[in-house]
Parts: sequence; structure tokens; C-alpha cells
Amino acid sequence: MSELKPIVLYQHAQGPNPWKVVMILEELGVPYEEIFQDPSTIKQEPYISLNPNGRVPTIQDPNTGITLWESGAIIEYLVDTYDKEKKISFDTFPEKYHAKQFLIFQVSGQGPYYGQLAFFKFFHPEKVESAIQRYEEQTLRVMSVLDKCLEGKEYLVGGKCTYADISFITWETVAQAIIPEFGEKTKQYTNYHAWLQRLMARPAIAKTLERKATMGAH
Amino acid sequence: MSELKPIVLYQHAQGPNPWKVVMILEELGVPYEEIFQDPSTIKQEPYISLNPNGRVPTIQDPNTGITLWESGAIIEYLVDTYDKEKKISFDTFPEKYHAKQFLIFQVSGQGPYYGQLAFFKFFHPEKVESAIQRYEEQTLRVMSVLDKCLEGKEYLVGGKCTYADISFITWETVAQAIIPEFGEKTKQYTNYHAWLQRLMARPAIAKTLERKATMGAH
Repeated sequence: MSELKPIVLYQHAQGPNPWKVVMILEELGVPYEEIFQDPSTIKQEPYISLNPNGRVPTIQDPNTGITLWESGAIIEYLVDTYDKEKKISFDTFPEKYHAKQFLIFQVSGQGPYYGQLAFFKFFHPEKVESAIQRYEEQTLRVMSVLDKCLEGKEYLVGGKCTYADISFITWETVAQAIIPEFGEKTKQYTNYHAWLQRLMARPAIAKTLERKATMGAH
Repeated sequence: MSELKPIVLYQHAQGPNPWKVVMILEELGVPYEEIFQDPSTIKQEPYISLNPNGRVPTIQDPNTGITLWESGAIIEYLVDTYDKEKKISFDTFPEKYHAKQFLIFQVSGQGPYYGQLAFFKFFHPEKVESAIQRYEEQTLRVMSVLDKCLEGKEYLVGGKCTYADISFITWETVAQAIIPEFGEKTKQYTNYHAWLQRLMARPAIAKTLERKATMGAH
């Protein structure tokens, strides 16, 4: 896709969500350039004129003119626009909607619960054990749901790795890095654990995780 | 659409997410029948064979054979399949993706923060003021983001009410019902407040909110 102009990705080294987008771009071989933000600049102009929610990622695609935020929407835009060969997506029914279902579970279930766990563990000014316990239970519950969905399957939908599978990786690797006992806990969910290893062995994913690590990110 | 067989919607009277789906079905005039669950039955068989996440809503559409969960995915499936006239959706670019962006903001931003506020206010076994305060701040932040996005606009995308606008209603009405001072707080966000009134005046929405209220739901 060398005729494409690079997609501009506003991102943050420590943020799990922009790296989800990087993985999709790498899988699809779409050129991109990153503009790294830090937590203070994303809450002020000029960034909030691009993304009034003050979060990363946001993309600007010079090939189509769109500015878009929310990693879930960006991922669907990228596969709709650039995955013409359906390498990591489906245009068949019902697979197309089942992939969407799991993407939504990632952005509305996994991301928020994992995020609250990290917040109460590391950023909340007060140590609230009952809140930490709540979110530990919920993160394990998310794993158990995925474990059940993966019973007898290599991937979540239609026997093929899709953007939905890939979307779950970064929150899991961040959780394992910042909470060392977390990695051990995933092993009781054997389908889930095997699936993560399978995903992380993909060249585009391994390359992204490696680059993320060299930036001091989890 | 009288030739359609009714879509089966597994729902719960108190849950904000199933009612989002009802609003979309009402807007599109798609027939449906509801199977009401309660919090205990959704965590066990036979329901978890339909939806391993143990939440509502789930739909089964006998017209296409699909079973689908996650309200965000269900809503996009319904508009793709049944909104051929694009009454509450777009097939134009970039509106199509901007509507998706706001839907994802609802499911990953508004829903989880409002949900955690309700949880710490009413269900958490310990009274944790700092957690309640965190989620009150975050819910107000979500309102402020939408308020900014609505500056000079009647609706979030393309001058037309879409499924994305509609998706924000039920969490807001639940929050206002269970936290009385909440309704007052929304008034400082004047664009946001006016938009909510505009949405709630739509016949399909007003009808749904009224029926919800008669069931003792917020």
C-alpha cells in the first residue's frame, strides 16, 4: 500500500488503546506516523479540538480526510477501508457482527474494568482495598468469559484471527506488567492463555509489543 | 415491516442497555418480543449459553438466524439490517464513522462511568466516598464532552438524530432518577440539556420511557 499517505496517529506510549490501533495498522501494512502526546497535552488545545474527549488515540487519514477518535471506531474504520482482502475481518454473515460483538465487549467490558483496576491500584489518592478487590474480580470474570467463548476454538470468530481478537491484547499485557501476579492468574483460564500466546506470536503483534517495550511502556 | 417475524429481545426492566435497543426497534418500526430476565437468571444456564457474558441485552433474530449480544453491536446490526431508508443512521462518509465514534464513546465512556457511580452509590458493600466522588466527576466530564460536541448543533452527527444520539438517553435518565441532584447538574451543560429534551420528545423515545416507567423501572 505504498501509494497511501501515512495515517497520522496521536498516541501515548503508556496507553493501551493507541497500541491496539498500531497493531491493526501493522497487520494491514498501512503506513502511519505517530505523534506522541502526554497526559497534560491531551486535556488542552490544540488536541481537544481534534478530540474533545481528551484521550488517545485519534487518527487523521489524509487519504480520506477523516479525523476520528475512539479506538473501537478507528479499528472498524481501518478494516472497512484498508482490509479489502479480509485478512483480519469478515464481510460474511453472521461473522461480521460477531466480530463487532467482541470488539464492543473489549471496549465496554475489558478496557473499563482493567482500567479501573489500574486506577485504584496506582493512581487513586486513597488505598481502597474493596474497590481493588471489585476490579480484580471483574478482570478475572472477563478472562473467564473469553475462556468460555474460546472453548474448542483457536479464535473468537469464524476460525480466523480478527481485529476483535487483537483488540484484547494490550490491556492484558499492561495488566500483567503492572500487576506481576496477574500473569499467573491467567493460566487457570487455559483456552484464554493459549489464545493470548497464539496472538502474541503473530509477527505484527510481536513487533508492536517489542517496540512498545523499548519505549519503556508496559 | 409487518412481514418480519418479531426479534426476540432478552432484557431486564431496570437495565439501561436493553432499553437502548428497544428505542432503536421502536424508531425503526421493527417488531419485537421481550423476554424479561432477572439478575440471577442471566448468570446461569440456559441464558449463558446465549450470552456467556451473563448480561442483557441479547437478541435472536428469526429473520436472519443471528444471536447477538452487546447493545452496541446489536444497535449497529439493527440499523445495518433494518434502517434501509437511513432514518437514524448514515451511509455517507464521514458521517457513518462519526456516528460509530459516538456510539463507542457511549458504550466505553458514558456507560461504564455511570455504571460505576451507581454501583458505588447503591451496591458496593462499603461506603467509599472517594470512589463516589471519582465517578461523579467522570459522569460530569462525559456530559461536558458531549456539551462541547453539541456546540451549535442539534445532534451529534450530520444534523440528524442517529442511533448514536439515542444510545446516550437511558443511562442519563437512570442517573437522574436514582440521584435526584443529578438532573439539576445537567442544566449547567446547556447544549447537552437541550439535546436531551429534544431526544426525549421523539415519539419512539417518549413511548419507550413511558413504558419503562410503568414497569417501575428508572
